[in-house]
Amino acid sequence: MKEDYKNIKVIGFDADDTLWVNETYFRDAEVAFAKLLAQYETLNKIDQELFKMEMKNLPLYGYGVKGFILSMVEMALELSNNNVSNRAIQAILDIGKDMINKPVELLEGVETVLKTLSNNYRLILATKGDLLDQERKLEKSGLIDYFHHIEVLSDKQELNYSKLLNRLDVKPSEFLMIGNSLKSDILPLVNIKAHAIHVPFHTTWTHEQVDESETNGKTYRTVSSLLDILPLFN
Amino acid sequence: MKEDYKNIKVIGFDADDTLWVNETYFRDAEVAFAKLLAQYETLNKIDQELFKMEMKNLPLYGYGVKGFILSMVEMALELSNNNVSNRAIQAILDIGKDMINKPVELLEGVETVLKTLSNNYRLILATKGDLLDQERKLEKSGLIDYFHHIEVLSDKQELNYSKLLNRLDVKPSEFLMIGNSLKSDILPLVNIKAHAIHVPFHTTWTHEQVDESETNGKTYRTVSSLLDILPLFN
Repeated sequence: MKEDYKNIKVIGFDADDTLWVNETYFRDAEVAFAKLLAQYETLNKIDQELFKMEMKNLPLYGYGVKGFILSMVEMALELSNNNVSNRAIQAILDIGKDMINKPVELLEGVETVLKTLSNNYRLILATKGDLLDQERKLEKSGLIDYFHHIEVLSDKQELNYSKLLNRLDVKPSEFLMIGNSLKSDILPLVNIKAHAIHVPFHTTWTHEQVDESETNGKTYRTVSSLLDILPLFN
Repeated sequence: MKEDYKNIKVIGFDADDTLWVNETYFRDAEVAFAKLLAQYETLNKIDQELFKMEMKNLPLYGYGVKGFILSMVEMALELSNNNVSNRAIQAILDIGKDMINKPVELLEGVETVLKTLSNNYRLILATKGDLLDQERKLEKSGLIDYFHHIEVLSDKQELNYSKLLNRLDVKPSEFLMIGNSLKSDILPLVNIKAHAIHVPFHTTWTHEQVDESETNGKTYRTVSSLLDILPLFN
């Protein structure tokens, strides 16, 4: 085992785009949304405006599909100057329900990695999505038995993680976080002296992107697939 | 102290309508919603249909304000046969945002009770609302320092509580739940042999109402105000 992991007791896994596909469904939803409103604006403009609306509503609605649907409805009213049809509003609600009902598509190596690591570590799922949504996905995924429990964080900043470690009663040196988002799963952990392994996903939400300067001099590992984590623990 | 409370280590408090006013705001929102659609149906019918829509969507959206807003939007489309105005949809979104932004109105005796009990017990907030919403309310309430942390449950059934006690590493006999809902805060606890104290609120959501037969022979205390709890711990 790599020397720096010898004190690890608890491993936190991000859920969306670390264990299973998620961002892809949001991108698909955005395309469907833009098509609904194509008579009012270009697809590109609609995309940009929807992102702004999501950011405006984020403090109020938080993360997750429900806030996203509400932002789409509000955007449709605004972009159309209150001329959008009831059918389009219904279609937006349907896009949202479809997203919630999507099957869970596991990423490569997930089951092997969880099975192996759960023999020696307490695994938790640490997500900022909606609790019910994440419980449902975990249920569908068949991975539930590998996890001790789910921790939903309203945000994934340093303070949220510090409180989490407190709750779990582990020191930063005893905690490893594994996830696809530098902003949410990696940098805050590095900053509080916990461990972090970055497993990039091919698509990253604009809100989660970070400048290269933010990662300069930070100590964390990057692997190209979850399976590459196992050799680190041999 | 009452004999049966001598092993208590952790006390869980429900949040909405136990610590602060909540159901009242939902009732107000329902009235505002019904007025928006008054041209289509009677207020009474709108109220009944909205409740049905909420129940239909509950497995998908879960509890909390965001799902409630989405159900109101869907109901408006349906009740109006897709003739509702964009202005009415906007008004529904605004009703929702207003609910989220409501000031926190503490119920009688809350601060005194939390202050006293937090000296000898670990207090947690156990709620099935939205995490961000409840964190925000707790922040606004000024009560945050009395609680060890917030536990958001996707539902409040026996299994959810059993998992919670597991996570908290306490036995049922060491846990006391205090709340306003017989269905969510009291009966599941009694059924898993934990302790429960019922503090009724004047308004109960239809979904939370229970038949008298369900409470027959169950062992829990009822007090008329949170303040009546303190003598039980003297």
